[in-house]
Amino acid sequence: MNDFVKVFAPASVANLACGFDILGLAIEHPGDEIIARKSNHSGLRISKITGDNGLLPLDIEKNTAGYAAKQLMITHGCQNVGVELEIHKKMPFGSGLGSSAASAAGAVFAISELLSLEISKREMLASAVLGEQRADGAYHADNVAPALLGGIVLIRDNTTLDIIELPVPEQLYVSVAHPEIEILTKEARNILSSVVLLNQHVKQNGNLGAFVAGLYKNDYELISRSMNDHIIEPQRKKLIPWFDDLKSTLIKTECLGTSISGSGPSIFALSKGAAKAEKVHQIMESFFQNLVIEHQVYTSKINCKGAHRI
Amino acid sequence: MNDFVKVFAPASVANLACGFDILGLAIEHPGDEIIARKSNHSGLRISKITGDNGLLPLDIEKNTAGYAAKQLMITHGCQNVGVELEIHKKMPFGSGLGSSAASAAGAVFAISELLSLEISKREMLASAVLGEQRADGAYHADNVAPALLGGIVLIRDNTTLDIIELPVPEQLYVSVAHPEIEILTKEARNILSSVVLLNQHVKQNGNLGAFVAGLYKNDYELISRSMNDHIIEPQRKKLIPWFDDLKSTLIKTECLGTSISGSGPSIFALSKGAAKAEKVHQIMESFFQNLVIEHQVYTSKINCKGAHRI
Repeated sequence: MNDFVKVFAPASVANLACGFDILGLAIEHPGDEIIARKSNHSGLRISKITGDNGLLPLDIEKNTAGYAAKQLMITHGCQNVGVELEIHKKMPFGSGLGSSAASAAGAVFAISELLSLEISKREMLASAVLGEQRADGAYHADNVAPALLGGIVLIRDNTTLDIIELPVPEQLYVSVAHPEIEILTKEARNILSSVVLLNQHVKQNGNLGAFVAGLYKNDYELISRSMNDHIIEPQRKKLIPWFDDLKSTLIKTECLGTSISGSGPSIFALSKGAAKAEKVHQIMESFFQNLVIEHQVYTSKINCKGAHRI
Repeated sequence: MNDFVKVFAPASVANLACGFDILGLAIEHPGDEIIARKSNHSGLRISKITGDNGLLPLDIEKNTAGYAAKQLMITHGCQNVGVELEIHKKMPFGSGLGSSAASAAGAVFAISELLSLEISKREMLASAVLGEQRADGAYHADNVAPALLGGIVLIRDNTTLDIIELPVPEQLYVSVAHPEIEILTKEARNILSSVVLLNQHVKQNGNLGAFVAGLYKNDYELISRSMNDHIIEPQRKKLIPWFDDLKSTLIKTECLGTSISGSGPSIFALSKGAAKAEKVHQIMESFFQNLVIEHQVYTSKINCKGAHRI
């Protein structure tokens, strides 16, 4: 058994244009750090939170990471072991980067390591999803699964957490631009119509299937042709006034595709190769500089490790 | 150049539960036979149709196979070459087995062989889809593409005919039961709501992505879990009074999944291995015998050849 573990859990990009609520991938940075250590008190408590501007609750029942950790401990019958959790937020909230998912994924992984539970990451997933549900009200794994497992993940069914780890093409890069404008996930969800036109459903289904095939075939052109969102993007972009401008600028860079990251306001783009990804990165930087909007841009390969000890 | 070619083009199963309008596969039999031969008259004419009970028009403009053949000849600048087409229908109309698609696929392949056009099957596809459009009014390739190319086909986009040939697992079998009750494709299409609930869209998208992944992974369990249709089947089964009975009986056989073939009334099931497929076959047979409904049942591996010379 360990007395102390420190874990990094990455940010993630959900939806990926054609897979609303069912596709997500992990990026190299940013990410949250979770420290778990043994204590002499019985049960779990959160001893410290940094980087949250005082916004996150220390109450286990209300805290994403705390609730996820507690669920895992209950599942494995060790809810009375004394554990202290430190949560170091190193990415923004309400950014569309899966901030709460990273904390939940990091927390369950830290607990499993601290208590030497010897379970697979898939066995931790349900607890982490329950934790995330505290933050946005919905039980879905499109951020939690990539934050925990790494890679590109397809969720066949969010109810049963039937998860498929998709192949990651070697030269695939992801860039994400985060403008410092907060959009609450719940609001971005509430803006969505509860119905979809049948012909739009068919188009989106075709794109999703082709995107999955493109990953297996290592076919970047096919991945690119598939990255269209006929359903969600047209609705959510209304919350992001400069979206169309940035998108049309990015498309000219020969990136594979671009859309809203999760519920926004972050925008992501996939590229083939480091050179094109670097170009996308520069354009994202200068776009927000010109608008005089505080921002961060992150570019990396897909993070295939997910949550891991540091 | 040839003076005479005879072509077989297979029946096909469209939709495959989770891929409305975008998935289809070819079966070994039944199928149509198309004969094309040189003639001294200028241009294309249909000289003979059998097996249609006098229902199909000899007029090129109105005949699926004739129109498809003519489009291909125009595309390749040989519309004045003298060609006679014989169409031997060897499968039922309005069955959900892609009868018109088989005729269209067979016709374009026969023309390309007769005139030694030396083009790929993909280059014939648009003409065949235009032919099929004569029969059901819609421009879509979920029957034509498998009838022509063979295998299991995903259509990313019906407008541009962006087609992906998916892997065919070695032990995959398909059984199709055709009860002799006609449902017109247009009617089965008109019954469908033009909208889909967003949460149903997400479910169907998850299943479609997982079905595609299952084929690449050769994962029969995943294929099986993905074969759910939350959107189309519940609407179309109203036209097929005994559907629920047959489905619940088939599910007990350990088939991978079952649903309506195309727009019905045929029902298909996928199975892993010959023994289970044979069991499905027998159950389909006895089900319709008990109902005293005239029927045919076909069981085979996936037909990976598509349209070919015989």
